[in-house]
Amino acid sequence: MLNPNNRETPQIPSPLDADFEHDLDLYFLGPKSEQRQFLYEALQLVLNDHVFWRRNYWPKDPPAIGYSKVNGPDARHFREMFFTELFSLVSDLKLDVPVFSPRYMAHMISETTLPALVAYFATLLYNPNNVSSEASPVTIRYELEVGKQFARLFGFDDRTSFGHLTSGGTIANYESLWFHKAGRFLPVAIEMARRSHEGKRHPTGADALYELLNVPLQEGEVRLASYLGEGRDTESQWSKLESCLISHLGDTRFIREVEAQFETRWIEPVVIVPRTAHYCWRRSASLLGIGRDNFLKVAVDEQFRTSAQDLERVLESCRIEHRPVIQIVSVLGTTEFGSVDPIDELMDVRDRMVAHGIYAPVHVDGAYGGYFATIFQNGEASDPSPLEHDKQIRRAFRALSRVDSVTVDPHKAGYIPYGAGSIVIKHGYLKDLVAENAPYCLDRDNLTDGDDPRPQLGKLILEGSKPGAVAASVWFSHRLIPLDNNGYGRQLSTLCRIARRFDAMTSSWDGVVSLFRPHTNIVCLVATHPSITTYSGLNALNEHLAARFGVRDVLSIQSYDYLVSRTTVASDMPVLQTQPELAALEPDTDALSVMRLVFMNRWVELEEADGNMYLEDFLVKLRAAIEAWAE
Amino acid sequence: MLNPNNRETPQIPSPLDADFEHDLDLYFLGPKSEQRQFLYEALQLVLNDHVFWRRNYWPKDPPAIGYSKVNGPDARHFREMFFTELFSLVSDLKLDVPVFSPRYMAHMISETTLPALVAYFATLLYNPNNVSSEASPVTIRYELEVGKQFARLFGFDDRTSFGHLTSGGTIANYESLWFHKAGRFLPVAIEMARRSHEGKRHPTGADALYELLNVPLQEGEVRLASYLGEGRDTESQWSKLESCLISHLGDTRFIREVEAQFETRWIEPVVIVPRTAHYCWRRSASLLGIGRDNFLKVAVDEQFRTSAQDLERVLESCRIEHRPVIQIVSVLGTTEFGSVDPIDELMDVRDRMVAHGIYAPVHVDGAYGGYFATIFQNGEASDPSPLEHDKQIRRAFRALSRVDSVTVDPHKAGYIPYGAGSIVIKHGYLKDLVAENAPYCLDRDNLTDGDDPRPQLGKLILEGSKPGAVAASVWFSHRLIPLDNNGYGRQLSTLCRIARRFDAMTSSWDGVVSLFRPHTNIVCLVATHPSITTYSGLNALNEHLAARFGVRDVLSIQSYDYLVSRTTVASDMPVLQTQPELAALEPDTDALSVMRLVFMNRWVELEEADGNMYLEDFLVKLRAAIEAWAE
Repeated sequence: MLNPNNRETPQIPSPLDADFEHDLDLYFLGPKSEQRQFLYEALQLVLNDHVFWRRNYWPKDPPAIGYSKVNGPDARHFREMFFTELFSLVSDLKLDVPVFSPRYMAHMISETTLPALVAYFATLLYNPNNVSSEASPVTIRYELEVGKQFARLFGFDDRTSFGHLTSGGTIANYESLWFHKAGRFLPVAIEMARRSHEGKRHPTGADALYELLNVPLQEGEVRLASYLGEGRDTESQWSKLESCLISHLGDTRFIREVEAQFETRWIEPVVIVPRTAHYCWRRSASLLGIGRDNFLKVAVDEQFRTSAQDLERVLESCRIEHRPVIQIVSVLGTTEFGSVDPIDELMDVRDRMVAHGIYAPVHVDGAYGGYFATIFQNGEASDPSPLEHDKQIRRAFRALSRVDSVTVDPHKAGYIPYGAGSIVIKHGYLKDLVAENAPYCLDRDNLTDGDDPRPQLGKLILEGSKPGAVAASVWFSHRLIPLDNNGYGRQLSTLCRIARRFDAMTSSWDGVVSLFRPHTNIVCLVATHPSITTYSGLNALNEHLAARFGVRDVLSIQSYDYLVSRTTVASDMPVLQTQPELAALEPDTDALSVMRLVFMNRWVELEEADGNMYLEDFLVKLRAAIEAWAE
Repeated sequence: MLNPNNRETPQIPSPLDADFEHDLDLYFLGPKSEQRQFLYEALQLVLNDHVFWRRNYWPKDPPAIGYSKVNGPDARHFREMFFTELFSLVSDLKLDVPVFSPRYMAHMISETTLPALVAYFATLLYNPNNVSSEASPVTIRYELEVGKQFARLFGFDDRTSFGHLTSGGTIANYESLWFHKAGRFLPVAIEMARRSHEGKRHPTGADALYELLNVPLQEGEVRLASYLGEGRDTESQWSKLESCLISHLGDTRFIREVEAQFETRWIEPVVIVPRTAHYCWRRSASLLGIGRDNFLKVAVDEQFRTSAQDLERVLESCRIEHRPVIQIVSVLGTTEFGSVDPIDELMDVRDRMVAHGIYAPVHVDGAYGGYFATIFQNGEASDPSPLEHDKQIRRAFRALSRVDSVTVDPHKAGYIPYGAGSIVIKHGYLKDLVAENAPYCLDRDNLTDGDDPRPQLGKLILEGSKPGAVAASVWFSHRLIPLDNNGYGRQLSTLCRIARRFDAMTSSWDGVVSLFRPHTNIVCLVATHPSITTYSGLNALNEHLAARFGVRDVLSIQSYDYLVSRTTVASDMPVLQTQPELAALEPDTDALSVMRLVFMNRWVELEEADGNMYLEDFLVKLRAAIEAWAE
């Protein structure tokens, strides 16, 4: 008999493999709760299923809470109190932001998919902890399967890479540094482990060290295997090596040992990030002790893409200074502008520099943009995506298979509830370098997992506990909405088309400037007025508008007609020179305030109450607000 | 009119302030889903409330998904596919572990409280992100209120401390190191910032440095305020200081600057942890670059409590070596044994050593035991807790107000769904030392929050996104089950009493040894047999039993009669000498396998199907398994 625990998901054909192409509208509850009957039915099923699951475990065990207690006076009083408080809670929640509405265009958030919501609730009732198979025999498999799905999506080998979920993209980004740092310093550690039990004289000096600090990660794996095979047994070889690892010694002692062994001064390692990188990278600098000044910034172009040319300059300066690079960060869909880095060009630079003796792994922060890779999966979409037609962006996504790790957040473009982030690393062996063993619930014999039918996670990742409900939510949503251009790709194509349409619309509206043609689904707008001649004047207007269309302390969400967000663009950003209306102004401030619109809702092209398209109605309201301000 | 966003929770009397003392049975769904009607009603309320909230936002906006589409052939096909897959998902989930049952005594997990479950689901529908007020105007306040509740529970000043939720205790523990590291090196940074713009000669040498590295955190705050007031303006003083902070410079450059300025060699800082500390501390060593060898271990006594005497020895050796201590970790409820450190004695040692020139903040890892502090809150319990009667444990809990930070996990003894951890730091100013500003959604002018009506979190903590549903779940559960001896304290007292009762029961059962009288609700058992004379023999038996009563690959949970977990005790642990049956054996292995029972279910004293008390029935089954093994 088939053990359902070993049920391999890929063996079951995806429901969307059928010719029938479902309307994606059906996958959401909808801004008017149009799918409420469907949701009721699904929730009732999972709730009853759980309730009677409990009742069927040792059915003859008597009830623990007697019938008279459940219906007694105490219960009635409890009920009264509970519902009084609950009423107050849900009344509070109604002051939350109406992210479900086409009128909300502010942040990278919308309603979740129905599969995600139902699976989350179903699993919440069971409440597994995805830290070990013992605590979550079912959902930990979902999580590892999702890791493999992402690996395949990005063109990694799903057997040798390692992917899993995190509580968010920030933790995933920390983990990329943690894994890559362990890997980057491994060849030096191997060398030191060898030296410690060999008498002969070894090469010293800055060049010898720098060579070891620039061994590519794939070559590091080969060296590790070769080193482990050299000694009496793997275990003693490993234990000798372990005592030389930077994770074991700590940074300070590792550096001192290296300086002593190689008779050269340690040059501080750096991390290379684009100038527009998310602020979590700054924070990782303090968490990992790398230092904010050791995060080298690469310039971006007039569309906020990391400049390959400037990356080459930065790498070259590192090479000259003999500075090791822990990793290069490239961004797939910047948080603020949705821009897509030219990953192909950046990889060309990285690969070219290896020949000159400097190597660095490339981590793609695709927290936001990772899901857009689905647009390029599985042949023809019935409605070709605007991104498919954009050569630069297509090349960038196709180059993902060349990078070393990717962060992607299901709770952003995956329409999954918070907190669902994830990371995939291409070189799965790195997890063994940081692995921990917990005596009470992790399998201590199993370092590598591999085909172990009882997978473990807790000892290989940063987090120590994690909701299985998130894993089920992501897995089930992917099951019904595949990671290809008929599933998520179809939804995200629609959003990209909407953003481009809106960008085009603004060109015929006086007083509104779109900063550039969007790469994905974010449009940045600046409102202008003939009376304004300086950046500070422009900021006064745009900050007024950001407040007018921003989240406020309200007594009812009816106060909002449209919601957008705001961001700032540094005054020396190339984009500001590309628009004649802006280039003509006096740049008397450090930064320009801009309105930021994120299109996550597929229905913004429909008509609102008065018969205007939401997109257009917003522009009408925006112009009215500009005119009111000017008077 | 009262702005409901500013509604202060404390002004509304807690529902449990009433004389009426509810039966805590009512707060759970129950092992036979006894409270299912109640749960149905509550879920229906929150679901309808959300559905019609959507419909009432701009009511005249037309539906986005037409009635004909919702009921058309595509929808019917979608429905068929969805429910086929959903059926498969919930069937998978049924292979999860029956943590709701009195027959489950394995890990620190049980069913969640009804308030926690209902509030989680209610908020999931709204899906706020607790990173800024803009993304979660409501639930971010709940989170900060929960932080203050924990502060008060531990005896901190809720105005000057800083508490918030994390995805789990591991992240909270990392954060304790991150905050305390920033604080410990602040006085040196202030000194370096002063030197950089003063010509005069400053003291150098190891002693001058060591003095600055041992400034208590409360004195650090005074020095910071004094320094900021010295210059032309606060902002320029801050910016000078910032460039000297370890978070800014990175560890390596900070150390080099210090060595140059003080003309003395840097001694690597350490973290002091008990020998039995959770494995996440080892991992933090590699994440923060501190090094595993720089985690100094303190011995534990025969009940797994950190030895105050040994802490003094370790501190004294650090003092002699001039080694700075980032923090001392004390454990309130060890993960494996539920033991409570003598926090009062450890604080006495810490305080006494300050006079000798060595200072270290104390972080309490109360991920598991923190909620047990509720037993000691608010006067008399109607049924005094066994812990109240235990002087040592009472003194330990009363000393919590003296420590510097505490981790506590609502998803453990708080009966909240995963992932809900939290941390409270006493010295709230430390958050300013690590603060980040995100240009697009955080308020950049506000470093300290204070009385700002629009609180921010994202820039002050490690995580970049976090589910508001967790915050609502914790807040609402605390609202109905207060953090005192009539609420959570009543539940946890019951569990402690059960564990002590079970421990007492085992003394009359041949072949079963309880390692020691439990501090909280975890009992560790070793099965023995007259034929066994060595540790390895004992391990063979106890590993067999752990498998017999452990989670397996099953086709139905009916395969489990009772579930317990296993852990190991190092052979040199003092506890193993306290039991004559064990002391007589030959210690031929490094560790002893033991069975670990965690009592989280309040109904284990009831009768199972055959009329025996669950506790007793388990012992019957255990003895049968021992006898079957011996044959």
